[in-house]
Amino acid sequence: MPHLLHIDSSVQGDKSVSRALSARAAGRWRQTHAGGTVTYRDLDVDPVPHLTSETGTAPLVPAEERTPAQVASFALRVELIEEIKQADTLLLGLPVYNFGPPSTVKAWVDHLIARGHSIAADGSGGLLGDTEFIVLHARGGGYAAGTPREGWDHAEPWLQHAVSLTGLSPRFITAELTLAEVNPAMFDLKPLAAESLARAEAAVDELWAGVLAA
Amino acid sequence: MPHLLHIDSSVQGDKSVSRALSARAAGRWRQTHAGGTVTYRDLDVDPVPHLTSETGTAPLVPAEERTPAQVASFALRVELIEEIKQADTLLLGLPVYNFGPPSTVKAWVDHLIARGHSIAADGSGGLLGDTEFIVLHARGGGYAAGTPREGWDHAEPWLQHAVSLTGLSPRFITAELTLAEVNPAMFDLKPLAAESLARAEAAVDELWAGVLAA
Repeated sequence: MPHLLHIDSSVQGDKSVSRALSARAAGRWRQTHAGGTVTYRDLDVDPVPHLTSETGTAPLVPAEERTPAQVASFALRVELIEEIKQADTLLLGLPVYNFGPPSTVKAWVDHLIARGHSIAADGSGGLLGDTEFIVLHARGGGYAAGTPREGWDHAEPWLQHAVSLTGLSPRFITAELTLAEVNPAMFDLKPLAAESLARAEAAVDELWAGVLAA
Repeated sequence: MPHLLHIDSSVQGDKSVSRALSARAAGRWRQTHAGGTVTYRDLDVDPVPHLTSETGTAPLVPAEERTPAQVASFALRVELIEEIKQADTLLLGLPVYNFGPPSTVKAWVDHLIARGHSIAADGSGGLLGDTEFIVLHARGGGYAAGTPREGWDHAEPWLQHAVSLTGLSPRFITAELTLAEVNPAMFDLKPLAAESLARAEAAVDELWAGVLAA
């Protein structure tokens, strides 16, 4: 039976563009995967904790020597990794805050890195490559080639590199200039923002087209 | 009287290269600023919480309409910003984890963005530009031009962009290949790692040379 893992992270609730896009993608997935099941995780409501010196070095310590805090933290790593292994598709709603990912998404990714679980024990490759990974990405400004802030979206290239060790290979569907709706200084960019959103929605609606036809 | 704000974030304790470099820089600052005072903040021991829907939208809500959670979160923003305003120099120990900053550093920077406090109320510029900002940066791999992972350190360019809105302008002193000491696959890079560390230490030792001469 096909299985979907759907993760959101925006702090904006009903106003979130990344949440609207990830919900649209999840609906599209259900349409095209009859009998499929879904696990939903909300990194805003239930944030993954920061890794710290109390917990973060657990992978470097032999299992039998770990402190209770390290044992609990490592168990959360395994839980988050298994959630991905059990999914055929992973959808992540990813906004950009202050030119990077939400800190909750950084903390979630930090938990995904563990040899013997997401990466081969001998470091030879990633173990999560069987899960399709689609990122529903929303950013308030415009960071495309030729714009004044070209290259200021660090969330996208960082995520690609960070998860590459696990074999995950994200495909980004991006809506940009989302702040044009609320920031008076950007009101003249509203038409471009609407175009960007429409393109992202169309890309979502074309997901799994081959599955639908089959 | 000169004042220093010294912030660390590594989870590696005594083994941390960024902590060793920031401590060296703080020692150098004390040498060159007689009678100076220091505030120390450890983002590992006392992490700044993730901003979430309960707290993160506080700046968008009029002060008198904020929930208790929003009031407390906004007060922390103001505290962290005031800490910087009161410092002549800010030292930040910044390691790279999974090609980005520690999630605690992302959460700290997210708290620094607030109009009327770190950014002019009318958005016309940053208000923290009077504080010198030196980043003691340590990264496990090599990400310089011409290397296979050129551009994979996202912590440095992200931090530059994220704090630019506040007027802070970081100067980076970077030691790289720090994992060569512990990762057998990198043992042949130990000489390069030692050179990189020696260069970073020398750069620290030359800080405030004009102050010393005066």
